[in-house]
Amino acid sequence: MLKQPYLLFLGDAPDALAAKVAQGVKDWRPEASVGQLRLPGCKADMKLQEMSVADAVAAGAKTLVIGVANRGGLISDAWVAVLVEAMEAGMDVAAGLHTLLKDQPALVEAAKRTGQTLYDVRLPVVKYPIGEGRARPGKRILAVGTDCSCGKMYTALAMEKEMLARGMKATFRATGQTGILITGGGVPLDAVVADFMAGAVETLTPPNDEDHYDLIEGQGSLFHPSYSGVTMALIHGGAPDYLVLCHEPTRTHMRGLPHYVSPGLAALRPIAETLARVVNPDCVSIGCSVNTAALSDAEAKDCIERIEGELGLPAVDPFRNGAGKLVDALP
Amino acid sequence: MLKQPYLLFLGDAPDALAAKVAQGVKDWRPEASVGQLRLPGCKADMKLQEMSVADAVAAGAKTLVIGVANRGGLISDAWVAVLVEAMEAGMDVAAGLHTLLKDQPALVEAAKRTGQTLYDVRLPVVKYPIGEGRARPGKRILAVGTDCSCGKMYTALAMEKEMLARGMKATFRATGQTGILITGGGVPLDAVVADFMAGAVETLTPPNDEDHYDLIEGQGSLFHPSYSGVTMALIHGGAPDYLVLCHEPTRTHMRGLPHYVSPGLAALRPIAETLARVVNPDCVSIGCSVNTAALSDAEAKDCIERIEGELGLPAVDPFRNGAGKLVDALP
Repeated sequence: MLKQPYLLFLGDAPDALAAKVAQGVKDWRPEASVGQLRLPGCKADMKLQEMSVADAVAAGAKTLVIGVANRGGLISDAWVAVLVEAMEAGMDVAAGLHTLLKDQPALVEAAKRTGQTLYDVRLPVVKYPIGEGRARPGKRILAVGTDCSCGKMYTALAMEKEMLARGMKATFRATGQTGILITGGGVPLDAVVADFMAGAVETLTPPNDEDHYDLIEGQGSLFHPSYSGVTMALIHGGAPDYLVLCHEPTRTHMRGLPHYVSPGLAALRPIAETLARVVNPDCVSIGCSVNTAALSDAEAKDCIERIEGELGLPAVDPFRNGAGKLVDALP
Repeated sequence: MLKQPYLLFLGDAPDALAAKVAQGVKDWRPEASVGQLRLPGCKADMKLQEMSVADAVAAGAKTLVIGVANRGGLISDAWVAVLVEAMEAGMDVAAGLHTLLKDQPALVEAAKRTGQTLYDVRLPVVKYPIGEGRARPGKRILAVGTDCSCGKMYTALAMEKEMLARGMKATFRATGQTGILITGGGVPLDAVVADFMAGAVETLTPPNDEDHYDLIEGQGSLFHPSYSGVTMALIHGGAPDYLVLCHEPTRTHMRGLPHYVSPGLAALRPIAETLARVVNPDCVSIGCSVNTAALSDAEAKDCIERIEGELGLPAVDPFRNGAGKLVDALP
């Protein structure tokens, strides 16, 4: 687990999109950051207090989180200077970049010298067991999608927020680097060795109170040939009681694969349920989460109504309308 | 690729079963070994010529293959002495043990000194790409199972043998350590990082002649929660044109999971075909391979006839009756 609170490092982000990790932390864990640190030219702004490293430490910050991705995932000299300063001031440094912190000699040297820790959240840090596929107390909800990047993490985070607001016991379980940085812990599932994927998900979603809900972040799609094995491990390792079917209705092909059209929501439901029931015979789909960002309000309403008719399940865009309808759909 | 021919090292195998890797090499690649080397007390015998290291090198051996597993996968001092002698005589050393050759200082030192190579075939040695899920020339046949360890490797090897005997173009594609040692190359899929599983299988089964068949060794099962993600990656990365459904009819629970009963062959077919058709819309099941080792001749015949009736597909035990019926079933 990363130590909180954070100082969010936005670097020289060329635009708001480059700082989407920081935006995720700001949106979903607003209490987790004491402020932001921006370099000259930074075009992203989380509307947090601007802080130097010294300000942040004085405000209690324990970890500098790199909330921005450079082109190519690089770590510039200007960044290194700030990261070293942060460690010298007593903070750990965490990042989910393709370029690893631990491959930067200046950072490794500073970490050793200061006794602070470098967290590359793309890499697993523990040895996971082989999965056992055992039923366990507590409820688990898994977001599965017709494609990659169609709103699974957002859906799980929005459901957690709604459930906590209702006084329910709920925990978002991160399975990718953005989710891990947002919440401070999780499993970077796409970097786990094949044999241990299901066991890693089991470790992430341990036995719990019977009225507790894990909201498991989905990855990939059963229909996405590059990553479907990761999705499969989530379905069997997570042993979900409930599935939320996630969909982006305007996509003309699978993400990154111009030669593929997703078979779609109606095809996803039976196959995901059949596979989930191998481990948890009572697993059911409770609703659809539809990412309508590319549609107008009227189009989104029509689309969601059409999906409800086709699937016979409640559907909602949690970004437009909140996740209440999905939480209402729980038995 | 391991250099052939091999010297098969049987060590001090306590029984025949402990030498199942050596047996696999002997059965499926009889021309690959110049002889066997046994230590005092060895209870396994491949009926190959007994050879010292010097004999083997004189006979042209290029690689000493450890064809035996010790209890706990350990590498004893008595073994190390032979392995060092082999390297000093000019052979590489290959093993699929849990204990790695490269973690034995005496072996690493000898390899460095002699310029020979240690092959731990459990570990990937190349960086695989992300899978693209592209259709490609040539035919691919994948063995999928209702459980782990139900005869998928045997089925693929038996089909390759039958096809080559008929003058067809066919290549067994190993995805586990035994298959890799038998054939000299392949992908140790269960040790590949999640994101690259499908890409590893694509690399293993590249574009080929239109009348060439890859016989892809299956792993795990869509129904086995510990390893189903690996199976999924084989189905999408392998892009099979044909599936062979493998089954062990006497098993009362999933291998290693006393709390699971496999949903069985009739449940496997539609789900495996549906998932395979995401990548290859023309994929069909051509037949069932039934491991009847635990049945009498009469019971096996009844069982196979019952499966043929239930599935509407040709079924055969390739160990008892050869794989001809499965090859006949190709369109």
